[in-house]
Amino acid sequence: MISSTSSVVNIYPLSSYTFGTKDPRMEKDTSVSDRLARMKINYMKEGMRTSVEAILLVQEHNHPHILLLQIGNTFCKLPGGRLKPGENEIEGLKRKLSSKLATNSQGHQPNWQIGECAAVWWRPNFETIMYPIALPISPNQKSARKFSLFTSEREYFAVPKNLKLLAVPLFELYDNIQRYGPVISTIPQQMSRFQFKMVIS
Amino acid sequence: MISSTSSVVNIYPLSSYTFGTKDPRMEKDTSVSDRLARMKINYMKEGMRTSVEAILLVQEHNHPHILLLQIGNTFCKLPGGRLKPGENEIEGLKRKLSSKLATNSQGHQPNWQIGECAAVWWRPNFETIMYPIALPISPNQKSARKFSLFTSEREYFAVPKNLKLLAVPLFELYDNIQRYGPVISTIPQQMSRFQFKMVIS
Repeated sequence: MISSTSSVVNIYPLSSYTFGTKDPRMEKDTSVSDRLARMKINYMKEGMRTSVEAILLVQEHNHPHILLLQIGNTFCKLPGGRLKPGENEIEGLKRKLSSKLATNSQGHQPNWQIGECAAVWWRPNFETIMYPIALPISPNQKSARKFSLFTSEREYFAVPKNLKLLAVPLFELYDNIQRYGPVISTIPQQMSRFQFKMVIS
Repeated sequence: MISSTSSVVNIYPLSSYTFGTKDPRMEKDTSVSDRLARMKINYMKEGMRTSVEAILLVQEHNHPHILLLQIGNTFCKLPGGRLKPGENEIEGLKRKLSSKLATNSQGHQPNWQIGECAAVWWRPNFETIMYPIALPISPNQKSARKFSLFTSEREYFAVPKNLKLLAVPLFELYDNIQRYGPVISTIPQQMSRFQFKMVIS
């Protein structure tokens, strides 16, 4: 009865994926103020830049989880990163996923499948606050974050040694602004339109 | 650069639509506790029921607005209502939109166009709180609310005299739980994945 206008997303068990490690990938900035300062300099040089980030849904205990990278003890982010000026967003997201999560060896080239857009957030000022709408009062957006679904039936992830890859259940994210921030904590609302098909491998 | 995985939604000016009135349509319940009691009785008789609701985006001042029905001085809801047992959701939503917003005259039959699903919310218990995920601890959902996009290039709406039809800007809804509740206030997050094309009529 819920079916006729909903998209179906296949979700594979966490056990379909294997995990290893690779050399650390350090963050470019050591503080939020450093980050905003660098953003401002980059904006002056190159104009608005877009970050592309991937939501990979996996199942455990028959419930959908998403994969998040944890930096230090608290901060979590989706795998992804900034596009180069003019770069195609799908190619850019694949490049970023490889740099964050693929092994460095030549033998294994992952076949990342990028799916539907889930959300776009905008930053109207050089501040941390972002909005899910391009506010009419601020036509010159300073940056954007675009989340896309990422699907893969099975995959090997090589996780940089300074990061942890976590599978976080949607019910843990929901309304949990304190732990995950206002952007990642609303991923459950954006996922609610999908019909999840739990695939048994 | 934002385009490749996003859906495009055409938005027409508020002035494309015309508005009139029709006889009042009273709410079935006069309080939240009446409503939950009736829900419980219906659940015992018919099992889980789904409400289907429509999000109609319109533009004003070059910003997307959604149409909400206001009851009394504060409570707002989307046009729509409960499906009959076994009813097709698209047909059911068209029936509900007609009963809420179409003129009663035979001459004018609106051609409602139902679009993509935007969100589904679930009620695990006979309580007001709903979740955008089917919680694993409560397999027997008591009811569901499904929001679908509704598009129309131009339309005549006959609004029941006891209700007001409001065009509310997305930036007014965003994060405004106090005024619009936790469900309607997250519509901007669900809309963020769309590329809005502002059509000039």
